[in-house]
Amino acid sequence: AAFGPVFAQAQPTIRWRLASSFPKSLDTIYGAAEVLAERVRALTGGRFQIRPYQAGEIVPGLQVMDAVQQGTVEVGHTASYYFVGKAQVLAFDTSVPFGLTARQQNAWMYFGGGIELFRSIFADFGIIQFPGGNTGAQMGGWFRKEIRTLADLRGLKMRIPGPGGQVMSRLGVVPQVLAGGDIYPALERGTIDATEWVNPYDDEKLGFYRVAKNYYYPGFWEPGAMLVFYVNLREWQRLPKEYQQAFEVAAAEANQWMMAKYDQVNGPALQRLLRNGVRLRKWPNEIMQAAQKAAFEWFEEEAAKDATYRRVYTAWRRFREEQFRWFAVAELGYEQFAFPNV
Amino acid sequence: AAFGPVFAQAQPTIRWRLASSFPKSLDTIYGAAEVLAERVRALTGGRFQIRPYQAGEIVPGLQVMDAVQQGTVEVGHTASYYFVGKAQVLAFDTSVPFGLTARQQNAWMYFGGGIELFRSIFADFGIIQFPGGNTGAQMGGWFRKEIRTLADLRGLKMRIPGPGGQVMSRLGVVPQVLAGGDIYPALERGTIDATEWVNPYDDEKLGFYRVAKNYYYPGFWEPGAMLVFYVNLREWQRLPKEYQQAFEVAAAEANQWMMAKYDQVNGPALQRLLRNGVRLRKWPNEIMQAAQKAAFEWFEEEAAKDATYRRVYTAWRRFREEQFRWFAVAELGYEQFAFPNV
Repeated sequence: AAFGPVFAQAQPTIRWRLASSFPKSLDTIYGAAEVLAERVRALTGGRFQIRPYQAGEIVPGLQVMDAVQQGTVEVGHTASYYFVGKAQVLAFDTSVPFGLTARQQNAWMYFGGGIELFRSIFADFGIIQFPGGNTGAQMGGWFRKEIRTLADLRGLKMRIPGPGGQVMSRLGVVPQVLAGGDIYPALERGTIDATEWVNPYDDEKLGFYRVAKNYYYPGFWEPGAMLVFYVNLREWQRLPKEYQQAFEVAAAEANQWMMAKYDQVNGPALQRLLRNGVRLRKWPNEIMQAAQKAAFEWFEEEAAKDATYRRVYTAWRRFREEQFRWFAVAELGYEQFAFPNV
Repeated sequence: AAFGPVFAQAQPTIRWRLASSFPKSLDTIYGAAEVLAERVRALTGGRFQIRPYQAGEIVPGLQVMDAVQQGTVEVGHTASYYFVGKAQVLAFDTSVPFGLTARQQNAWMYFGGGIELFRSIFADFGIIQFPGGNTGAQMGGWFRKEIRTLADLRGLKMRIPGPGGQVMSRLGVVPQVLAGGDIYPALERGTIDATEWVNPYDDEKLGFYRVAKNYYYPGFWEPGAMLVFYVNLREWQRLPKEYQQAFEVAAAEANQWMMAKYDQVNGPALQRLLRNGVRLRKWPNEIMQAAQKAAFEWFEEEAAKDATYRRVYTAWRRFREEQFRWFAVAELGYEQFAFPNV
């Protein structure tokens, strides 16, 4: 009785366009959209076709949310924290300073109520969202000079957009927003003193190690940055049920794919950077403490201003507490022993 | 041209049976098989049906590999280290002492050559395998008495099967193999001094905390135990291509599902255990050091005896080195700061 005649009849051919917020050169992030498209195609005998376009081909990277909302494209692949101008709460869909790790973000999204919370928010924009990859804990960026104390951050010009910039500005940093291609020359000339980007694999490609040798860790402002697929809600609702299934499962696979891929490529990239004279430096504890304090003060301010933010922040904070207490035991206990001293 | 007539014609109805090595009471592990079956059903309009059976319903849990090889069932859901009696190398498909974490195991399997290495091994058994879930780093188990030194392990009767038992026996422990239901009474009566099981969520259900209050961490013998789906190779090759696609993507989703689910449920379970008077205890460094030394001595002995083991061990060891060096930086740097002291 459960076996409908669905696949006995020809399903419609559907062609969707996917606008990515990323260039093809960020091949691990961009690649997740290709993985999604290819799996959906194969699952539907080639009838449900999604064609990915890199940032700028249809719309600029930062207009992906608008493009999906307006139906210019049916799908977007992006990071929700690009759109905090529409609602600050969207940062929690990606990563916030001192937030969840990649595994914890998955646990929150799939089982801790995260997806449902954000579905209720994105519905107001005519969008339905699916987790779509993760970078893992990012690096803290490239600094021309060593940073020894909190005072060394005062007046420092650092390319760091978004929530990380918010927190760093509270420590006296002067955050700069520069597109990927403009960062290297600015760092080389000393127009900026520092920049963050992603992790060893992506950072190496932009060559920062040639002009700034101090490579800080961790990137406490993005401990597990989640990417996301946006789908126009009307288009989603018109999709045959089996195509919805194909999209949903392919998105879940792409989510896992990106994290595993980044983990695989970052190790060798880090070793190449070290062979090129890069000096790994851990953030002084004083700076981490001050940044964490600043982050939570900022969250509280936002929560006081906006009921939706407060609802998500409260749920997130409780989940975070539970997760941190558990991960401090078996996972951290193992890693502290097994992983080498840097 | 890429659009075959596949779904325009009715696909065959296929019914497979899946034998799990686990009881339904281990709902997170067993649940991954149900997730796989449900997704495959929905992706194929109900035509490809996989019905999971718990351990003992068709074959005992430890006969799942034989059952798939012989075609008694088409699919198994199990852990390869149960079958080290057939080939010691199979332990690397699950987890070995001081091995990879869950994320690192994914990176190895999907992108580090792990799946391909094991496909070449499982082909000799007429099986094709797919990663099928992970427990994450497990706990070190329940001890009636506190363990302060390496000497305290001598003669200790501990329920610990498999590779963990191998390593512990080299430290003087007398490993015991007991089925799940027999452990609690043996621990209560003092027939055994200690037992390991899985993690807070699963351990709580068996009630060990009522008779042994010392809960050790980490379970260094299983830092990221991967489950696996086995498929009979002839049955796999006869499957329509779209059904193969459906199975493969559903297995990938189930792999991620289990880890996220365990992460979500372990936090609250740990807090309940602590409220019940459980004392968390970290393994003394002396014991971790001795166990790590014993583990690698054992790997080297096995590698000297068997060419296939040597091939896998060599690839694994190199991958592990790269991964540990990278994870020691951004991930561990973040976690050491952000997670609380236990």
